[in-house]
Amino acid sequence: MTEPLPSWNDGQAKSTILDFVERVARDGSPEYVEPTDRVAVFDNDGTLWCERPTYVQALFLLDRLREQVAEQPELAAQPVVEALLRGDLRAATAHGLEALSQVLLGTHAGLTAEEFDQAARRWLSEARHPQFGVRFGELTYLPMLELLDLLRERGFRVFIVSGGGVEFVRAASVELYGVPPDDVVGSAVVLSFERRDGKVVLVRQPALLGSPNEGPPKPVNIQAHIGVRPIFAAGNSAGDAEMLEYAHTSDLPSLCLVVNHDDAEREYAYDGTAATNPNAEPIVITAQRLGWTVASMRTDWRQIFTPAGALSSPRGGKDPAAASAQARYS
Amino acid sequence: MTEPLPSWNDGQAKSTILDFVERVARDGSPEYVEPTDRVAVFDNDGTLWCERPTYVQALFLLDRLREQVAEQPELAAQPVVEALLRGDLRAATAHGLEALSQVLLGTHAGLTAEEFDQAARRWLSEARHPQFGVRFGELTYLPMLELLDLLRERGFRVFIVSGGGVEFVRAASVELYGVPPDDVVGSAVVLSFERRDGKVVLVRQPALLGSPNEGPPKPVNIQAHIGVRPIFAAGNSAGDAEMLEYAHTSDLPSLCLVVNHDDAEREYAYDGTAATNPNAEPIVITAQRLGWTVASMRTDWRQIFTPAGALSSPRGGKDPAAASAQARYS
Repeated sequence: MTEPLPSWNDGQAKSTILDFVERVARDGSPEYVEPTDRVAVFDNDGTLWCERPTYVQALFLLDRLREQVAEQPELAAQPVVEALLRGDLRAATAHGLEALSQVLLGTHAGLTAEEFDQAARRWLSEARHPQFGVRFGELTYLPMLELLDLLRERGFRVFIVSGGGVEFVRAASVELYGVPPDDVVGSAVVLSFERRDGKVVLVRQPALLGSPNEGPPKPVNIQAHIGVRPIFAAGNSAGDAEMLEYAHTSDLPSLCLVVNHDDAEREYAYDGTAATNPNAEPIVITAQRLGWTVASMRTDWRQIFTPAGALSSPRGGKDPAAASAQARYS
Repeated sequence: MTEPLPSWNDGQAKSTILDFVERVARDGSPEYVEPTDRVAVFDNDGTLWCERPTYVQALFLLDRLREQVAEQPELAAQPVVEALLRGDLRAATAHGLEALSQVLLGTHAGLTAEEFDQAARRWLSEARHPQFGVRFGELTYLPMLELLDLLRERGFRVFIVSGGGVEFVRAASVELYGVPPDDVVGSAVVLSFERRDGKVVLVRQPALLGSPNEGPPKPVNIQAHIGVRPIFAAGNSAGDAEMLEYAHTSDLPSLCLVVNHDDAEREYAYDGTAATNPNAEPIVITAQRLGWTVASMRTDWRQIFTPAGALSSPRGGKDPAAASAQARYS
């Protein structure tokens, strides 16, 4: 086996991770954990890929909104739409979250699940990050991909638990992370059962199903979808705190990892509050209080992003770990 | 490889299944389907195990209700409870489904997800079928277990999509079917996020989350949890019809299988209407109309139940197929 976590600098974060994995996965270890309980959950935005200047999904929705306005110019008269098109999220939010979410949920309402999936994949294959100028798949964090591989090599099952829309994240998860669609938990819209041209289709409605998958809903949805309390959890904002606390308070050995965005030079520097609640305690503070492991992007990560071109073919052909992750799926 | 489906008699059902699996999974087949799309979904009650004289889960809830009445005898004064304790489901239902479901949802309200799981496992390891006198795990259908193994051998991923409670079915699914908790989709109760003695727990509330997982919700929940349209679907009642129709109207080759309970001698004989809607078209009629495959328990199945003792240890040690299913999980 090649050296694990090659893009991590030697330091406390790396050694804590390697030590934990060894303790729970080595036969005969006093803290051995059965494979059925080796469940790892990862937040997506800001934990596995770049979430600044704004969420990737928000850019996707905005591009579709621009198309809608081109088709129906009268839409631009709505103050929320006008603010969004100017890129002024603060002004758009000032009209109320309800009005904002109606516009955003309206961008893909009426599409079948399969049509939405195609639209998301097409956009992801074409769109470019406004500052880095590369496709968003090239802004996944290489150290975190290595961590996914390490965990899978050691018998963990890896799930994504995202505040983003489950069907948007799924459109990226196999190629970028080797995580199949059924191992993604996220926010969801209401789907309606319909028949079109004799075919059963599931049609997106302009309404969220329950609450967004942030904060306390993360552990609730982990139970609803996965049914096993994780022993490894990683996140980067206050919206992940309850998920990490859920793993932290397992009766089994557990590890909680917080990605600290402190690298203004290579990525961005911002504190780990929740986008939806700027008054929440930044998760790096929670981590200090509870003894969680903090990965500093600046000091712990030798390289931030996946090398250009590494994503031109689906993950899985690159190394044995990724191949085995794919094998589980295929 | 040993002969597949040994408990199936030669006939149209068996040959249709073998032919389908060969067509979609053999390299170079003109109807080859990529492994990522080889998703199979199975109803549970009446499809994988016996559902008469009533649902296994109903017996579990009734046993807990009896305990509750022993602890609080005044509960027996409620007409619904009194009818349930007499075993008169018709009388209990006459008081309204709302009153009935409040009593049944009340049996485990307040338990954490982990406490409920333990209670369900303990009950399943002890309780006996009222007529056959064996544990319910011994009333799984051997021909269907062989079918699960065949599909997994041929690269399918197998999910359970049950009208039963997801957390009850999970308590049985690994041992009986080799299906891990995250591959079970079912009806669900509302869970609340709480802290007890400093530990995050998810607590069962006396309310269903959304609709029961029957009828149109089955395909909707398949999309919500799995995210791939199945190409193989099996069921036994009108509540499964929409799920089978969802697979049937895939753009890929698909197979829909209906288990016909026509064996009063070895199991039970009853038609495939839905328990919740006796006026619905029996699914065997739907199957004839749409060309789905019907497995007659009387003529297609050489043996109905798993041999006694086969379940004394978890599935997985018995044969290579089951072992490989477990390997995926572990």
